[in-house]
Amino acid sequence: MRVIVCTADQKLQIQVKEQPIFSLNTQVNFARISIKAFGINRADLLQKAGHYPAPPGVAKDILGLEFAGVIEAFSNGADHCEGFQLGDRVMGICSGEAYAEQIIVPCGHLLPIPAQFSFSTAASIPEAHLTAYDALVNQGQLKEEDEILIHAIGSGVGCAAAKIADFLGAKVSGTTRSLWKKERALSQLHLQKVYLSEHGRFMGADEQNNFDLILDFIGAAYLKENMQRLKHQGRLVMIGLLGGIKAELNLGILLAKRAQIIGTVLRSRSIQEKADLTQAYRQKILPFLIKNTESLQSEDQGIKLEPVYKVYAPHELEQAHQDLAHSQVWSKLVCQWD
Amino acid sequence: MRVIVCTADQKLQIQVKEQPIFSLNTQVNFARISIKAFGINRADLLQKAGHYPAPPGVAKDILGLEFAGVIEAFSNGADHCEGFQLGDRVMGICSGEAYAEQIIVPCGHLLPIPAQFSFSTAASIPEAHLTAYDALVNQGQLKEEDEILIHAIGSGVGCAAAKIADFLGAKVSGTTRSLWKKERALSQLHLQKVYLSEHGRFMGADEQNNFDLILDFIGAAYLKENMQRLKHQGRLVMIGLLGGIKAELNLGILLAKRAQIIGTVLRSRSIQEKADLTQAYRQKILPFLIKNTESLQSEDQGIKLEPVYKVYAPHELEQAHQDLAHSQVWSKLVCQWD
Repeated sequence: MRVIVCTADQKLQIQVKEQPIFSLNTQVNFARISIKAFGINRADLLQKAGHYPAPPGVAKDILGLEFAGVIEAFSNGADHCEGFQLGDRVMGICSGEAYAEQIIVPCGHLLPIPAQFSFSTAASIPEAHLTAYDALVNQGQLKEEDEILIHAIGSGVGCAAAKIADFLGAKVSGTTRSLWKKERALSQLHLQKVYLSEHGRFMGADEQNNFDLILDFIGAAYLKENMQRLKHQGRLVMIGLLGGIKAELNLGILLAKRAQIIGTVLRSRSIQEKADLTQAYRQKILPFLIKNTESLQSEDQGIKLEPVYKVYAPHELEQAHQDLAHSQVWSKLVCQWD
Repeated sequence: MRVIVCTADQKLQIQVKEQPIFSLNTQVNFARISIKAFGINRADLLQKAGHYPAPPGVAKDILGLEFAGVIEAFSNGADHCEGFQLGDRVMGICSGEAYAEQIIVPCGHLLPIPAQFSFSTAASIPEAHLTAYDALVNQGQLKEEDEILIHAIGSGVGCAAAKIADFLGAKVSGTTRSLWKKERALSQLHLQKVYLSEHGRFMGADEQNNFDLILDFIGAAYLKENMQRLKHQGRLVMIGLLGGIKAELNLGILLAKRAQIIGTVLRSRSIQEKADLTQAYRQKILPFLIKNTESLQSEDQGIKLEPVYKVYAPHELEQAHQDLAHSQVWSKLVCQWD
């Protein structure tokens, strides 16, 4: 099989490797997936730069946290397993190694690809949607009518979180650093407001809005204003630290507001935790995904999936990483095997 | 009735005032309590110094967050209400004004005083026990076998939290700044370990212990080490800020550990929230309180209530505040009317 290897000088290179083999002596059922497309994530860039190491047992030099493809084999040798059959179109998250033509993952981490979506569209779903769903619902305890603020609204997780939160009845606002993303967010996502952020500030001093829940990818640079913008009993869920890791925290505000700061990552979770999240998402959100071009009777009926911004070929991955690094992209980028 | 008023120059003075009257036009049932004893809390000192203002509708100059006494009247004029009868011995938390001979509180905030406890013992229970129970169970999601660390283990809330957490099956350790409290904690509380804290550090660099839950009253001075000492998915519950309010937070640790920082206060909560907490405590903990001198078949059967450290007369309250300020006291101080 072909894999895209991250070399010692941080370049991406297509190489040919042996097909991965099933682990023995495990209680978990695994499936081997023939990958047709995979998502490109900011975390891939971090891993390439040495800032986001792969967990134990996962190859360091093969990036990739999500995939879409076809089931080729099960670890128990059967032709069906945990509700899936050989040949099923599936997608899911993984702890790495998705920049490849094949991957082995626990059957509990598989999601069926809805019939209306291509492999490249499907490859844009798992990481952004599972991260957003978990951050909103499991970590952030999202309730109907909650006012929520999503930073980096134009990112893959940002768009997914905006759509899922809107579907779950929240009132969603967002922030972004570029004017074109602000305009795009206002036209494509169902938002109350979009704030243009600058120099670690994202709102004018006269803004009265306060939020039950803030989803943050920025970290240190926004901590102070995030704490100010939380309502009483508000939750700040931190899923990324693009704006630095150390910042002064005012504990007086934390106590007075009875606020919570919650740090979360998906990648390091146990197989069971990831399976639980995958199943919750499969039940609560997946059945409601529709194509962006389909029409809805009402906003409550479904979630229009944001189209993939750009599909790259494997030899264009280096360019994809640069495009993502310069933040001049919207929502998700994916790579498709020929 | 007599009340103890905090004068403009921060002195405590016994004065005579009108008996408090029931509010009209409210959906909530209230009871007037003849107070026999009340607890003295560190928050009283903060309020006296202007750092912990009374909530709206509560007298600024009458301190006091907990009481024990007898029901004298109900707001609806009946002789029983919400399971209580006139003449019942009751205790509870309040938003202020407990330094008085009478107080009016919602019936839902009352707890029956177990027969084995005097009024002065009862007055030591509500604030420390409800705070500890809420911080451990509702905020900190305490589970059996959790390893927990309680700072200021010799404080009223510290002792209460140690006993409640032990009763609920957790493995409890504590910190304190004085050697005599360390020795007393080891002999009187059922603890794994007690650490002597110094200069914002509470553990030797070689200590391997890490905690599922840390209960902190100190704030800024301990934030860094608290974050280091949390286990994966650990919770840091902050209920006080004696060591300052602003500190640098390492968000990298927060994310990597999937940790939570939770700020909490009781005083500002709604009537309903306080009633819910009071009822949960009444069900889960109150039936298991026994006197410190009683013997237990096993540790699981009951909670030996820590004896009151000192009972003061109303004219000695100024001295009580000084004793508390100098931290040379153990567990709870109460004041008893003659």
